[in-house]
Amino acid sequence: MNTISLAHGNGGKMMEDLIDNLFLKYLNNDIINKKDDASPVPEIKGVPVISTDTFVVDPIFFPGGNIGKLSICGTVNDLAVTGAIPLYLTVGFILEEGLPIKHLEKIIISMAEVSREANVKIVAGDTKVVERGKGDKIFINTTGVGMIGDKLKLSDENIKLGDKVIINGSIAEHGLAILMERNQMDFSTSIKSDCCTLSDLIVTLLSETNGIKFMRDPTRGGMATVLNEIATRYNVGIEIEEEKVPLGDEIKSLCKILGLDPLYLANEGKVLIIADREKSEKIVDIMRRHPYGRNSSIIGTIVDNNDQQVYLKTRIGGKRIITKLMHDMLPRIC
Amino acid sequence: MNTISLAHGNGGKMMEDLIDNLFLKYLNNDIINKKDDASPVPEIKGVPVISTDTFVVDPIFFPGGNIGKLSICGTVNDLAVTGAIPLYLTVGFILEEGLPIKHLEKIIISMAEVSREANVKIVAGDTKVVERGKGDKIFINTTGVGMIGDKLKLSDENIKLGDKVIINGSIAEHGLAILMERNQMDFSTSIKSDCCTLSDLIVTLLSETNGIKFMRDPTRGGMATVLNEIATRYNVGIEIEEEKVPLGDEIKSLCKILGLDPLYLANEGKVLIIADREKSEKIVDIMRRHPYGRNSSIIGTIVDNNDQQVYLKTRIGGKRIITKLMHDMLPRIC
Repeated sequence: MNTISLAHGNGGKMMEDLIDNLFLKYLNNDIINKKDDASPVPEIKGVPVISTDTFVVDPIFFPGGNIGKLSICGTVNDLAVTGAIPLYLTVGFILEEGLPIKHLEKIIISMAEVSREANVKIVAGDTKVVERGKGDKIFINTTGVGMIGDKLKLSDENIKLGDKVIINGSIAEHGLAILMERNQMDFSTSIKSDCCTLSDLIVTLLSETNGIKFMRDPTRGGMATVLNEIATRYNVGIEIEEEKVPLGDEIKSLCKILGLDPLYLANEGKVLIIADREKSEKIVDIMRRHPYGRNSSIIGTIVDNNDQQVYLKTRIGGKRIITKLMHDMLPRIC
Repeated sequence: MNTISLAHGNGGKMMEDLIDNLFLKYLNNDIINKKDDASPVPEIKGVPVISTDTFVVDPIFFPGGNIGKLSICGTVNDLAVTGAIPLYLTVGFILEEGLPIKHLEKIIISMAEVSREANVKIVAGDTKVVERGKGDKIFINTTGVGMIGDKLKLSDENIKLGDKVIINGSIAEHGLAILMERNQMDFSTSIKSDCCTLSDLIVTLLSETNGIKFMRDPTRGGMATVLNEIATRYNVGIEIEEEKVPLGDEIKSLCKILGLDPLYLANEGKVLIIADREKSEKIVDIMRRHPYGRNSSIIGTIVDNNDQQVYLKTRIGGKRIITKLMHDMLPRIC
């Protein structure tokens, strides 16, 4: 049998074989190997943090990753940016009848690799199969449980005027990589999704510095969406300096050609940080020493603003309001 | 806007409105109202238990429930049968473009009702939208975190010869309700899905009795599948007495007419228990006092069997082997 059939999702013998010969072959550990419907896990000593995300990215394979790698990175990062150490993940698959089993295998191998890198255990799983035309190859939900300990945590201080906005590298890579792959453009590019797990970078940061007040991964809706959320939530204005925002040359040209604003394009390996002004240089120094932070940069400042505006100070000194995203730029980006 | 559009899933303004005006209108609590990507929750004092399940049931509305109610019951029950008290749930939606918003609202109202009944908090959520024809109305993943405390837990004793098999009522209701609804048979029946949350029944049982060694909810693959899992895992034989298995008259006739074996049909409000022989009568007495256990019955016995066989002792004294489910009887039953 080379493709997924409905019988792989019915709770019977074929499903058991799929679990044993594929899922558990790669995603094995002391907990999931027991194949319980619900898995007891070691005690969580600290504040538990829970996050869920469903991945429907199209195409399922793209430069820099695939839906499996993305599904682990996405949830690990959602936990990590709260200051939590990611501990446990669950995975729920919806497979479309006809999915080649070798594609599923490739996806699962990626999930195994990246969850090992992030040091999280996959502790429970579920598989459903839908008829051809009722799904789209594969959808994956990952739900994560992490822990905020006593030692590693965000600063208790409120965000205040003068605080700095920091990012760990070039934006828009994931969104653009998906777009290029989906539309099979006539020209080739070297753009790859930035998809990676940020937990190691973040744990390093929290253990070696202080003064980090807020972190968020700017995924769907891009940096513009996260900045607007911050402005609204903390009732502040944010000024971003256009020339400070890390942006690869190729990304820059492509966005110009395609008429896309990189600020709204998705990232899957970026963390946006708000930090105390005094500490921000040190934070960037530490980030730059990490493989996922080489191009870190201070890109803006928290400013006084009654309208909770986010704006870009352009190279030529102009000011452009960065509004909330209203219309769909790219469906199924993650 | 009366239907779901792709823009409801892009992380922008329309998605925010959907979250505020629909999801949080019904599924609100102190944790989810903060709208964090990852939610800190109160400390878990005991052994955490984690379970995940994705629901793709077709049709999404059926007698006795809908995909929303099912998605809460399914995960709550997976946790409950381990002896855990369900605490927190996450929900991940995959919506198909064109889904009527009033259908989504009805589903969410059910989820709110049944999660209140089960006393679990929905602490995190995620919504994705796929194009028309790339999904099927709505899929829901729920992931749950529960806790096994010091006081309420299963017996540490191993399953042994003479232990009793108990179930809390008529089997095959969910599977048959879905089948009838899907095929729009020419005759009408009063069969309803048994979909309900079992946590209250189970907590009652664990606090008032002891001697319960194993519990499992016989969902996909039905009672036959769970019994076979037990036989394999604990290396025992299981004898089920046909006439003791609770089975509604209508269910019995319909299964006969349609050529279906009720032992393989799905349940969504049943718990199968293995208990010490001495304690089993008392356990059944307590179960019968609970609304979800009125028709509880001792249906079988753990027997010695080198082949790990599960068999049915029929009314006329015959013996029929209950094998593992090999072929798909009903896809998308949950």
